[in-house]
Amino acid sequence: MIRLLRRLLIGKPLHNQEMSHEKLTNWKALAIFSSDALSSVAYGPEQIMLILVAIPGVLAYGYLGWISLAILLLLAIVTISYVQVAKANPGGGGSYSVAIANLGEMPALIAAASLFADYTLTVAVSISSGTDAIVSAFPSLAQHTVPIDLFVLFFILMLINLRGVRESATTFVLPTYAFIFGIIALILAGGYQTLTGQAPVIPAVSLQKEWSSGVLFLILRAFASGCSSMTGVEAISNGVTMFKNPEVHNAKVTTYWMSSILGLMFIGIAFLIMHLHIMPLEDVTALSQLAQKIFGRNYLYFYIQITTMLVLYLAANTAFNGLPPLLSILARDGYMPRYLGVRGERLSFSNGIVLLSVVAGLLIIAFSGNTEHLISLYAIGVFLSFTIAQTGMVVYWRKQGVSAVNPHVIINAVGAIVTGIVVLIIGISKFFFGAWIILLFIPAMIYVFKKIKSHYNDMAEQLHLPLGEMDPSITTEIHAGKNIVVVPISSPTSVVAQTLKYAKSIGDNVIAVHIATDQAIGQKVQEKWMCWNPGIELKTLYSPYRLVVQPLIDYISELAKEKGPDDYITILIPEFETKKWWHRLLHNQTGWVLRTLLILNKNVIVSTIPYHLRK
Amino acid sequence: MIRLLRRLLIGKPLHNQEMSHEKLTNWKALAIFSSDALSSVAYGPEQIMLILVAIPGVLAYGYLGWISLAILLLLAIVTISYVQVAKANPGGGGSYSVAIANLGEMPALIAAASLFADYTLTVAVSISSGTDAIVSAFPSLAQHTVPIDLFVLFFILMLINLRGVRESATTFVLPTYAFIFGIIALILAGGYQTLTGQAPVIPAVSLQKEWSSGVLFLILRAFASGCSSMTGVEAISNGVTMFKNPEVHNAKVTTYWMSSILGLMFIGIAFLIMHLHIMPLEDVTALSQLAQKIFGRNYLYFYIQITTMLVLYLAANTAFNGLPPLLSILARDGYMPRYLGVRGERLSFSNGIVLLSVVAGLLIIAFSGNTEHLISLYAIGVFLSFTIAQTGMVVYWRKQGVSAVNPHVIINAVGAIVTGIVVLIIGISKFFFGAWIILLFIPAMIYVFKKIKSHYNDMAEQLHLPLGEMDPSITTEIHAGKNIVVVPISSPTSVVAQTLKYAKSIGDNVIAVHIATDQAIGQKVQEKWMCWNPGIELKTLYSPYRLVVQPLIDYISELAKEKGPDDYITILIPEFETKKWWHRLLHNQTGWVLRTLLILNKNVIVSTIPYHLRK
Repeated sequence: MIRLLRRLLIGKPLHNQEMSHEKLTNWKALAIFSSDALSSVAYGPEQIMLILVAIPGVLAYGYLGWISLAILLLLAIVTISYVQVAKANPGGGGSYSVAIANLGEMPALIAAASLFADYTLTVAVSISSGTDAIVSAFPSLAQHTVPIDLFVLFFILMLINLRGVRESATTFVLPTYAFIFGIIALILAGGYQTLTGQAPVIPAVSLQKEWSSGVLFLILRAFASGCSSMTGVEAISNGVTMFKNPEVHNAKVTTYWMSSILGLMFIGIAFLIMHLHIMPLEDVTALSQLAQKIFGRNYLYFYIQITTMLVLYLAANTAFNGLPPLLSILARDGYMPRYLGVRGERLSFSNGIVLLSVVAGLLIIAFSGNTEHLISLYAIGVFLSFTIAQTGMVVYWRKQGVSAVNPHVIINAVGAIVTGIVVLIIGISKFFFGAWIILLFIPAMIYVFKKIKSHYNDMAEQLHLPLGEMDPSITTEIHAGKNIVVVPISSPTSVVAQTLKYAKSIGDNVIAVHIATDQAIGQKVQEKWMCWNPGIELKTLYSPYRLVVQPLIDYISELAKEKGPDDYITILIPEFETKKWWHRLLHNQTGWVLRTLLILNKNVIVSTIPYHLRK
Repeated sequence: MIRLLRRLLIGKPLHNQEMSHEKLTNWKALAIFSSDALSSVAYGPEQIMLILVAIPGVLAYGYLGWISLAILLLLAIVTISYVQVAKANPGGGGSYSVAIANLGEMPALIAAASLFADYTLTVAVSISSGTDAIVSAFPSLAQHTVPIDLFVLFFILMLINLRGVRESATTFVLPTYAFIFGIIALILAGGYQTLTGQAPVIPAVSLQKEWSSGVLFLILRAFASGCSSMTGVEAISNGVTMFKNPEVHNAKVTTYWMSSILGLMFIGIAFLIMHLHIMPLEDVTALSQLAQKIFGRNYLYFYIQITTMLVLYLAANTAFNGLPPLLSILARDGYMPRYLGVRGERLSFSNGIVLLSVVAGLLIIAFSGNTEHLISLYAIGVFLSFTIAQTGMVVYWRKQGVSAVNPHVIINAVGAIVTGIVVLIIGISKFFFGAWIILLFIPAMIYVFKKIKSHYNDMAEQLHLPLGEMDPSITTEIHAGKNIVVVPISSPTSVVAQTLKYAKSIGDNVIAVHIATDQAIGQKVQEKWMCWNPGIELKTLYSPYRLVVQPLIDYISELAKEKGPDDYITILIPEFETKKWWHRLLHNQTGWVLRTLLILNKNVIVSTIPYHLRK
């Protein structure tokens, strides 16, 4: 039954040879790698506004333009830097790989922890924002955002990824282009209305500013929030191998296309927000307000909302392509549990996919699907991993013998410094608004990585067999000692008969033991035993304190003292396999208790022998 | 560590011979058996008022007197009936025993289910009321009633009873007498004030009545609530054996004393409530209001509150003396899980004590420690078990050959009819106020009893060895088949070496199996194996779909087909015993999975071999 359900939901197992090595054309690659980056215009400009409205009056709009331009500049720097990463790492890699190759363990682990936070937040933020887009269009859904989020997460994204659908599927290409088309149309229509309309292009009130140090702090926070639009810019540099030849050139061209479209859409939306004086609302996104003002509530409006939703859910999907492989690399390096490195029956890293889904689900529940609060946590991890990757690149170029004034080095150094400054800005301006969570999470995660690594190291050392020093022609002798088999019984029954039969097959020295809580009961069982006469000694232990487990353990400890060092004691506990689950509650769990108590004894094995009840 | 904590909390194990058979003097017995009955005056009269206040104006008081007299009459009938039970059952027993001996299985199970509900509710109600008493005196505790309830339940009552303190301890005698003394003093002082005061003894307004069918229904409900004061009257008849000789006579005298004191206190408090026009309040009990009005807020007031609290907690304790032995009888008869019938190391029925505590704790949490709602559930179970016991007594007398017009038969018949009518009154008038829960619970519980019984019957049949037909002089041959031992391995390590060593000791036919997810890995492990050369065949199974468990199961199914009918296949799974709990998360649980999947195969045993990691 479970297997059938599994087949239905996940599909039949795939053979090792079915691993895909398809190459992508540029236009497909653009759609696949950039949904994360492009979709962030759906919440990025709004996040800036959310902070700026704290400045009195509509003065807020006076700063939106400048902050947007700063983000555009930052985007240019990050883009150029990542083109360098693409050039230097044609094998793909990401911050962790760059850092472990060039900067050592600690920066690599910081990058890994940042990426872990980043990817899980990408899933949580993108799904929440996608749901926000559809809730803006259909306000009656506002009560159900968290259930919708979780449904999309577990029943669409997780299942699709467990099935291991190829990321190149054309289905994944359409929404991105549909979204780009919609947003560009919105910007053009809005721009046309602006130029032909009565109102000034930028209302005078939007240009007023009022300076104070409090305002500066708000501006920095707004900038920090806006930086969340830049997540996903690094995606192409991680996927260089998937481009057609010439790989690096194609990746470069696609990166520039992506950043240009992102920049254009970002600045266009920011301009329209300024022009139309859009204010953030609880249940309606800024993009939805824009579309409604420009198009009216017609099919174009719904087109914008639905493509926005789709591209955001698609952006969440990119994290499913990103984190599980990273976890598998971490598992291979010993920093994460081994099973995260195993490809499932559908060739996807199923354990990593489930882990990502669960963590993202917990984030959505903990923050009640509230995009704003999730984004507060977001940007710092992204920029931390940018900084580490760029710094790693500087070291990489220098190792390659490239001079310190070479453009390669300069570009990455500028990238590292700028993104490093952004990390500081975000860390300070948003410290009390969520950044502290990430700043605690990263060291905690590194501690976990190191603990796991040290456990695996300890284990490898303990498990090591010195094979190198062995002579294959000589059989390594495995000396088998005696096996004393102890079968605790409460009364002669057919289950005892069956257990004794198995006992006979695994050892010649079989002892049946009865713990009698009372002399009379002990006598009676002994008599029944004589009557049955199974040819096996019955040892009766009296337990006037009515303890069952303790006298047995004492008896086994006695036996253990007498046996040879290579001998074993096996305790066989009959266990009823009941037909109905609740019947289990009617039988005591002595097997489990004994197992737990005896597990520390050397050469003592507790084995439960199933007895199948027919009804 | 755990064992030490256990010793500290519960004490050292007790020997079978330490079972107490102490005899009680009447004055001790009165205190011990009647805390449940007497303490109910702390909430009974108030419960009547809670219903009556729904009648417009202070007209309510007009009915309190009559209802109280009706309850007093009912008390007299129940008392006389139970004296009969004491006479007829000098061995003790209770409704279940009376019913199973005289009325058959179904009435006995109804009685058992009613008693189960009754006892757990006694614990929940008494603890909640005890806490109410102390909260009335110290209103700042009002926020913490549920935590206080649970603390008293788990850390005082449950622990004391697991320790198995003798119920005859003098500590348990004092609070009851202190409480009786306090309440009598309160009634005397109140009565004196009434007679010497200005106001009329019973204000005229209290005597006004206004009749309607709605009022009748309220009066019946108020009467039903008041019946909760009668719980615990049966206690003495269950403990006749604990009295000094002449047992029956002493028990009879003590029962009359108890009922007289109960009646006096009940009517006294009801009178004072009428005289002083006490109204039920949220956080202050009626008794506390009375004490404050009569004594003022001085040490006498606190004396009343504290002794009330103590006697109520003590009343909860009587359920701990009542339910676990009943559960053990039910377990012995096969209606409850066997382990409820086993005396723990301190001679108490520990499992029953824990079960009672957990159920009562859940009730307290579910009803937020609200006495009123709990009492709604209470009275019906009590009177149902009264009715069954009285009916059983009628049958008992008739079986003894006693004529139908003999006083014995008449008394019990009257008792059965009157309590039966009370059951109907409570069931109808409180149906929508909680009684439906009990009326659903009782059949549900009976269903559970019968299911458990039928499972044990089925099992006994399947486990039966026909010992009677066996000739003790002939050894019943236990034919031991071969044992094929399969050891799944992932690579030759010291844990494999250790597992193979045990494998050798339990069978001559040992096969190591490696599941290779990849040809190259399979080759490599095979080479390592040759190099090690442990003298055991390594079978490599290729699994291009990367499934580990499925190929192994298929292989074992193949083996199972080839083996003889008496042969066994034992699969040994090495399992790491880690030093730290979280290290477990770093290892996969293949052993557990295999076990679950193979458990249905006949003669296939999955055994995990612990390997102790040193760090």
